[in-house]
Amino acid sequence: MSQSLSFLNPNSVAIIGASKDPTKRGFRAIQTLLQEKFAGAIFPINPKETDILGLPCHPDLDSVPQQIDLALICTPARTLPSMVRACGEKGVRGAVVLAGGFSEAGEEGARLEQEMITAARQFGVRLVGPNTSGMFNTHKACNLVGFSDLEPGGIGILSQSGNMALSLVTEGQINGHMGFSTYIGVGNEADLQFHEYLDYFGDDEQTKVVIAYVEGLKNGHAFLESARRVCRIKPVVLYKSGRTEVGQNTAKSHTGALAGSYGVARGALQQAGVTVVNRSDQILSVAEALALLPAPPSKRIAILADGGGHATIAADALTEQGMQLPRLSRQTRERLAAILPPAAALGNPVDVAGGTDSNPEVFADCAEAILDDPSVDALLVVGLFGGYAIRFSETLGPIENHTASRLGGMIERFGKPIILQSLYAPMRTEALVTLRAAGVPVHESVETAVRCLVSLGEYGAARARIAALEPASAAEVNAAAAGIVANARSEGRSSLLEHEAQALLKSYGVAVPPSVLVCSSGGLSQVRAQLGDVPLAMKVVSKDILHKSDAGAVKLNVVGETEMGQAYSAIVENSLAYRANAEIKGVLVSPMARKGGVEIIIGVTRDPQFGPIMMFGLGGIFVEVLKDVVFRSLPLTAIDAAEMLDEIKAKAILGGVRGAPPVDREALIELMLRISQVCLAHPEIVELDLNPILGYADGYALVDARMILG
Amino acid sequence: MSQSLSFLNPNSVAIIGASKDPTKRGFRAIQTLLQEKFAGAIFPINPKETDILGLPCHPDLDSVPQQIDLALICTPARTLPSMVRACGEKGVRGAVVLAGGFSEAGEEGARLEQEMITAARQFGVRLVGPNTSGMFNTHKACNLVGFSDLEPGGIGILSQSGNMALSLVTEGQINGHMGFSTYIGVGNEADLQFHEYLDYFGDDEQTKVVIAYVEGLKNGHAFLESARRVCRIKPVVLYKSGRTEVGQNTAKSHTGALAGSYGVARGALQQAGVTVVNRSDQILSVAEALALLPAPPSKRIAILADGGGHATIAADALTEQGMQLPRLSRQTRERLAAILPPAAALGNPVDVAGGTDSNPEVFADCAEAILDDPSVDALLVVGLFGGYAIRFSETLGPIENHTASRLGGMIERFGKPIILQSLYAPMRTEALVTLRAAGVPVHESVETAVRCLVSLGEYGAARARIAALEPASAAEVNAAAAGIVANARSEGRSSLLEHEAQALLKSYGVAVPPSVLVCSSGGLSQVRAQLGDVPLAMKVVSKDILHKSDAGAVKLNVVGETEMGQAYSAIVENSLAYRANAEIKGVLVSPMARKGGVEIIIGVTRDPQFGPIMMFGLGGIFVEVLKDVVFRSLPLTAIDAAEMLDEIKAKAILGGVRGAPPVDREALIELMLRISQVCLAHPEIVELDLNPILGYADGYALVDARMILG
Repeated sequence: MSQSLSFLNPNSVAIIGASKDPTKRGFRAIQTLLQEKFAGAIFPINPKETDILGLPCHPDLDSVPQQIDLALICTPARTLPSMVRACGEKGVRGAVVLAGGFSEAGEEGARLEQEMITAARQFGVRLVGPNTSGMFNTHKACNLVGFSDLEPGGIGILSQSGNMALSLVTEGQINGHMGFSTYIGVGNEADLQFHEYLDYFGDDEQTKVVIAYVEGLKNGHAFLESARRVCRIKPVVLYKSGRTEVGQNTAKSHTGALAGSYGVARGALQQAGVTVVNRSDQILSVAEALALLPAPPSKRIAILADGGGHATIAADALTEQGMQLPRLSRQTRERLAAILPPAAALGNPVDVAGGTDSNPEVFADCAEAILDDPSVDALLVVGLFGGYAIRFSETLGPIENHTASRLGGMIERFGKPIILQSLYAPMRTEALVTLRAAGVPVHESVETAVRCLVSLGEYGAARARIAALEPASAAEVNAAAAGIVANARSEGRSSLLEHEAQALLKSYGVAVPPSVLVCSSGGLSQVRAQLGDVPLAMKVVSKDILHKSDAGAVKLNVVGETEMGQAYSAIVENSLAYRANAEIKGVLVSPMARKGGVEIIIGVTRDPQFGPIMMFGLGGIFVEVLKDVVFRSLPLTAIDAAEMLDEIKAKAILGGVRGAPPVDREALIELMLRISQVCLAHPEIVELDLNPILGYADGYALVDARMILG
Repeated sequence: MSQSLSFLNPNSVAIIGASKDPTKRGFRAIQTLLQEKFAGAIFPINPKETDILGLPCHPDLDSVPQQIDLALICTPARTLPSMVRACGEKGVRGAVVLAGGFSEAGEEGARLEQEMITAARQFGVRLVGPNTSGMFNTHKACNLVGFSDLEPGGIGILSQSGNMALSLVTEGQINGHMGFSTYIGVGNEADLQFHEYLDYFGDDEQTKVVIAYVEGLKNGHAFLESARRVCRIKPVVLYKSGRTEVGQNTAKSHTGALAGSYGVARGALQQAGVTVVNRSDQILSVAEALALLPAPPSKRIAILADGGGHATIAADALTEQGMQLPRLSRQTRERLAAILPPAAALGNPVDVAGGTDSNPEVFADCAEAILDDPSVDALLVVGLFGGYAIRFSETLGPIENHTASRLGGMIERFGKPIILQSLYAPMRTEALVTLRAAGVPVHESVETAVRCLVSLGEYGAARARIAALEPASAAEVNAAAAGIVANARSEGRSSLLEHEAQALLKSYGVAVPPSVLVCSSGGLSQVRAQLGDVPLAMKVVSKDILHKSDAGAVKLNVVGETEMGQAYSAIVENSLAYRANAEIKGVLVSPMARKGGVEIIIGVTRDPQFGPIMMFGLGGIFVEVLKDVVFRSLPLTAIDAAEMLDEIKAKAILGGVRGAPPVDREALIELMLRISQVCLAHPEIVELDLNPILGYADGYALVDARMILG
């Protein structure tokens, strides 16, 4: 699919709506292409001009004698259908449509957009936008957005906001380490969508890391699929905007983007290997770290500091983010002791205690010792490095610079990332410039440096996880399940009754509690024989009664035949009192679930962006009040399921608290995998709710199951 | 107290251990004082030299003919006792002791430190340090730490890490808005402690805001007292390091600081009005915002943006931090509509939709309209402002600059804060320099700008709260309570038995459940008459049995005399089986608490740093697993107590969930206030635990009460 986007790497560009007015995009685009020495051909198109900026101007595409790879269309919205048609007739494979006034502007615009798309589809022209700030490809010197001073490099940007792209590029100019490859402003995504661009970036050799600024995804499911593929090859760093309702409304007023639930998006994207960053001021730093450094799937970090303050701040920040500071081995500590003064701290953090003041090269010696320690997977250097010539003596400058080279060489030598925090970072001293050139990220902020290390570990783990993904197999639809669904449909129902939902799950191997549907009180004694003389739960089965407890149509701890009879009558009576014409299929009788289990909820919904999504959480207030739930998209792997159990804040409860034993993780994971398979096999199940499930030390009990058909 | 620290504002300085060696502090200090034109007298002291850097060198303090305000002591640790004595004899009121090798270095050092302090006390010399990087006072051009290029201004720094001070000063040089007044490196705090310096800063007219970098406080309680006073006058911004166990160990290896629980420190400090910042890269920005801008006690922010991306990011970030984006009034929207193009968003965020591209002064017109809206208390401008001359046309430069002046003037005119985020912030364009000069903070990071606005609202609220603080009155100790404590002590007990704890609380007006202590099974029928024929709870009363439930020494839902008798026997038997020689006072009988209450915990401990601290949380897993608790120091006010109820993550449970009514807030607040008074009246109660309390729609029930005596 991405081959078809080769027009993003164009050798010839037509500017439709070329202009002599310097305030117009149709002028500035040509000016920029000329200034930046675009290597290909430039064809200004305007029937009213003969030449612009020294280039011959063609009246229309047709009169251009050569092949045109890409058209930048600067004319107003209403002209677009015919312009796109003209592109098609000329064989132009792609066009960037700047104009606004399409679907984002109301019904009339939406019609126009549709007309444009129809033309594009008819002629096989792919469109970027409309309503986009444009695109650039630095490696072709093809700058169709007009950002100045672009540094060619490895960062690709995919953005729903032109200003955010400008922010990133400007930040890169001032504080960046590696420059940019291609930017695409996705605009309204009328034709090309996020996932198609992501595929393109995945295959683009110039792009080492992809940054995506996303307000909403029109096809989140396809984006996940693309992300799973691309994240095996290179990191994708995504900032999701419109996380709160207020933010969503803001995003909507902006581009009409579909924002959706942040929890769902984050869960699904991270599962697909995407690095989701939640501070806009860390996007570039994280992207560069991922592009520049090895990403060991590890949490074991060592800190090397020339002062206790920064060491403590770094230790806190790393620990708060779940990282570990392994104690260095005896051998390493002995090596360090031989280098450093007696007051130095040698465990981890290593505090040189003045040991570098007169000779900053000691940093390199210490780093070498630390990186050689097999218990360390990454090194964070914090403090004053890069400013020794300023702080202590100018004579230290060359030593610092040499030290920087040595540190840079260690990344490849040890295969471990090094990040340096320096309070002198904004001063870009020679040593810091050398470090950056050697591929060591340099940050002023301890917190940003820490966030980069955390992201490296997470990406390393995610990459390993998605690399091991096997093609998902949905369960084969079995006849029993198909029959249950067909029967419900034939009765005009859009939901399964509880016993049907149970039977369907059972047909796929899910352990469901024994139960019997009783259709008259006469059947009760037989039921008792079947289920044994145990306390029973009895519930009405009726499509007309959704809130069974509210209706008084649930009786618990029913013991003995007399009570069963009374319960049956009460359930039927209460149901009819609650809803006069309720159609009652009968009463479902099952043994009471064992006491002492942990209340768990597993649900599956069809997310408008991401498709089938599983939610996992603990029941009751944990879901309702604390919203302590996690999400993953289907198909689920065993690793995904295990991560879900570990990601809820109250995960300790699954491990057993207040004397309770841990719940049976394996059984829960297996249940989640089966649910995933069932929901994939039955796309007609648009909602599934197992609430509650009681999790025990051995196995689980489904206390209630609900399924809604689409 | 702070008058005694006037030596921090010195007119004459002696350098003890003055040197001709340019690598020595005794040389560099004199060099810096000369270079920076210290206005007062400089007296190098060294018996081996006659002159240093052109200044006459005195063999000792005694031979200096004039008054010396401050001595910088550069000599090694072992010389300090005699040097301090010499200072005292000369009448020097304060000395900065640089040397390390004191209490931070082991027992020998601790003895030396004690000897030095004894001398200091004897002669009334106050000491900064030892083991400090030094101090500076820019308004006297007295730089005794050697940081270069200090810009005089309003920020005072109080730091347990010299490097962190250097970080802040360097950040200020590059990105700051206002410069520095005085820095003090507190070092070991052998004499002067954090709270005394804080008092000094409170009275120092040059200091507009105090930044404190704290690893641990030796006298947190005094610090709180000082903070309550100072925060009424000026903001105090504090970064607490050593928040995690790993960080605490790091801090310990550094300065031997006592780190303590971060939750306790944060709760107590914020209660005292301190702005606690938890990212080191936001300390300076927050401090400057608080010093430069009005701080309305409000959460109502308006966003003005020239692009949807930044607007959405800002809206999300503000909302996630609990801020509100009020919809602008119809009048304001009409004013904006008259200024902006039709595509503009007018609610809040306001998105100018290109309306500023050709005329950035539209920003000022919009800002005026927005700030005029009574529903808006602060304005955040986000996007490209300050870079219009770069992005669009150089001709816009002067207009942008004029706009910057207009924006600056609005802060005072409307009495509302304005913060500007610009992606061009690091470029320091003319317009941005003008904005900064006009007192408008400018940030590159949306998140930092947002954090500043959040801090302004919080500080405004905190200042109002502490300004209204009345002197706390402890309850007067009543005879009954004193008797209970005396009796326990006379029996050699360090804890009160449950019925004693209840009686003590009751004597101060706390509602405790009716209960009777029964000392033989013969007394049971009378108890039943007293308490009524209701289900009863029966528990052993014995100093030897702490975990009553584990011992089988609690019986619940006991009904009727027969059961009571059985329960009594079982409790006594089980207790003796659990602990053979347990001394059993009897069995405490009380009615079972009403069902349906919310489990709550209130505890008081004596924190080694902050003194008496109250903890509030929901019982069970909320405390044990989720650690969802909040802390405040005593005395507690009603506002403090109300904030505690609102600060726990699970606060919705107090408001009533799953059909439950809200708990009786007023009753809980009153209980907390009484507990505060009791613990202040009885400093001998070193620990108090009410766990659980059941909170009802009307009132509460103390189910268990425990008190430990010191």
